[in-house]
Amino acid sequence: MAVLDIPVRHYIVTGCAGFIGSHVVDRLLALGCRVTGIDNFSTGQRRFIEQALAKPNFVLYELDLLNQGATIQAFAGGDCVIHLAAHADVRSGVDHPQRDLQQNTLVTLNVLEAMRAQGISQIAFSSTGSIYGDTAVIPTPEDAPFPVQTSLYGASKLAAEGLITAYCEAFGFKAWILRFVSILGERYTHGHIFDFYRQLKANPQALYVLGDGQQRKSYLYVHDCIDALLLVMTQAQDKVNIFNLGVDGYCKVNDSIQWICESLDVSPTLTYAGGARGWVGDNPFIFLDTRRIRALGWKPSLEIADGVKKTVEFLRQNEWLLKARP
Amino acid sequence: MAVLDIPVRHYIVTGCAGFIGSHVVDRLLALGCRVTGIDNFSTGQRRFIEQALAKPNFVLYELDLLNQGATIQAFAGGDCVIHLAAHADVRSGVDHPQRDLQQNTLVTLNVLEAMRAQGISQIAFSSTGSIYGDTAVIPTPEDAPFPVQTSLYGASKLAAEGLITAYCEAFGFKAWILRFVSILGERYTHGHIFDFYRQLKANPQALYVLGDGQQRKSYLYVHDCIDALLLVMTQAQDKVNIFNLGVDGYCKVNDSIQWICESLDVSPTLTYAGGARGWVGDNPFIFLDTRRIRALGWKPSLEIADGVKKTVEFLRQNEWLLKARP
Repeated sequence: MAVLDIPVRHYIVTGCAGFIGSHVVDRLLALGCRVTGIDNFSTGQRRFIEQALAKPNFVLYELDLLNQGATIQAFAGGDCVIHLAAHADVRSGVDHPQRDLQQNTLVTLNVLEAMRAQGISQIAFSSTGSIYGDTAVIPTPEDAPFPVQTSLYGASKLAAEGLITAYCEAFGFKAWILRFVSILGERYTHGHIFDFYRQLKANPQALYVLGDGQQRKSYLYVHDCIDALLLVMTQAQDKVNIFNLGVDGYCKVNDSIQWICESLDVSPTLTYAGGARGWVGDNPFIFLDTRRIRALGWKPSLEIADGVKKTVEFLRQNEWLLKARP
Repeated sequence: MAVLDIPVRHYIVTGCAGFIGSHVVDRLLALGCRVTGIDNFSTGQRRFIEQALAKPNFVLYELDLLNQGATIQAFAGGDCVIHLAAHADVRSGVDHPQRDLQQNTLVTLNVLEAMRAQGISQIAFSSTGSIYGDTAVIPTPEDAPFPVQTSLYGASKLAAEGLITAYCEAFGFKAWILRFVSILGERYTHGHIFDFYRQLKANPQALYVLGDGQQRKSYLYVHDCIDALLLVMTQAQDKVNIFNLGVDGYCKVNDSIQWICESLDVSPTLTYAGGARGWVGDNPFIFLDTRRIRALGWKPSLEIADGVKKTVEFLRQNEWLLKARP
């Protein structure tokens, strides 16, 4: 995709050392923007922002967004916030019911309040296809029937969306809300490929699979995701702009296993945990209708299989991540 | 409506001294149930539970549900929670952005966690028609298109719904979620009739009206609301049971003004603030599709006009409330 005509301004990027955030930072810096990055390094990786830290237009704040005072200070001078910081592991909600609400909902309220305090009124937000729950409409459009939440992660992101749109109404904010499928590619740090890679590294003969392997999921390559983010921020100028992001298809977990095993040249014996859901609250079929963003001219450059293979290749070249991520 | 065949058990009622909560307590006690009531008396009125306090089956805990430890203790021995405690003033979100999230969302998480701690797995919850935002589908059914929030109040209730349904999925809870229109009747303590009554008491010659008076709203009589609550808890036995509650119609604010003025025998000069919305985030047309609950055999006993008149009559006989509620 061509370099976008995004306004050269001062962006605040939360979760700047994360998988998606660090790529956003690199892209904005390459476009000549000034970037303030914020991360608490709970899952972010300093190595991902090494290039950024060498640039004069980048400032890093190591802080927790639950710290309201420090957040307000860090937002000084910003024109627009790209809020990507999150507790992004949809599977662990059951073990820590308060964490999703704290990290995804309360943190978002703090971000919105810091924006008000600093006179910033534009925010882009990484939401999730998980908020559609077990929807009956697939592929799922942005205006699908009112969903019932199945995961604390989805509930916490839905709550954050609600706060953001209420701030748009109350305080004249403008928001871009992007509901992602799972993202793949360089700097990938968690998810099924990570888990499978780790298992196969320890023992190439055996792979344990959550669920029955029939779960149907959609995935998007990280650079396609960021193209979409920058495109909507440039092109969509309603008060509230909501877009699904994903490829025009899906795969089964078993397909993904095959691509991973081919990439690694292994043939493990597969053992399935069983059941239609990979974990409590898992949605066994996620496939988003992306006609809204495609109408703006965006289309993904990579199919799912290629995204999976690129991700495996990244992990192969960055095995330090297996140790860095417990 | 006939007395319902609700299971005689030990109910925990949060917000027990509030408008709706105190009626629920009275009804459950009359049905022979044991009731633990919880209220922080931020807006609840001790006078509303005077009858209940005289009964041996009622125990009152004066505590704030943000206090997790005390909440867990108070939930001991309960079979089912009816969670009505809330910051219920939809208009003031803009002035106190954190209050809705704390009182409606965080409190709900505490309630859910206290339920887990005490092995309680059934919860009824008072949600709101405000969560449909400025929906284009009117009358609005429960599965209306995915709404965009316009108020912090709506966002905080939507977030609470999400938490509750995620707990149903994760922890085997059963939930009854009731999305109310505004409620009228005895023990009414806030809303437009309260404001108009107070104004007309101070000066019967003049009435100041938020918005343009053309806002279309639906209202339900409190005893019809409680009939519905007890009915769905008895009849609807899915994991997640979501029901709209309202009458089969709506009125304009100007209609309501006419009924109030007739009841009080006054003819004030009306001054309008102007604009389609009564306040920031107000939804100028709320009218819910209630076919789902009507299919269970429920129908409201009072029309809106009668509800308004009953409310005015209650306020006339309870002017102490004007002082009790600043």
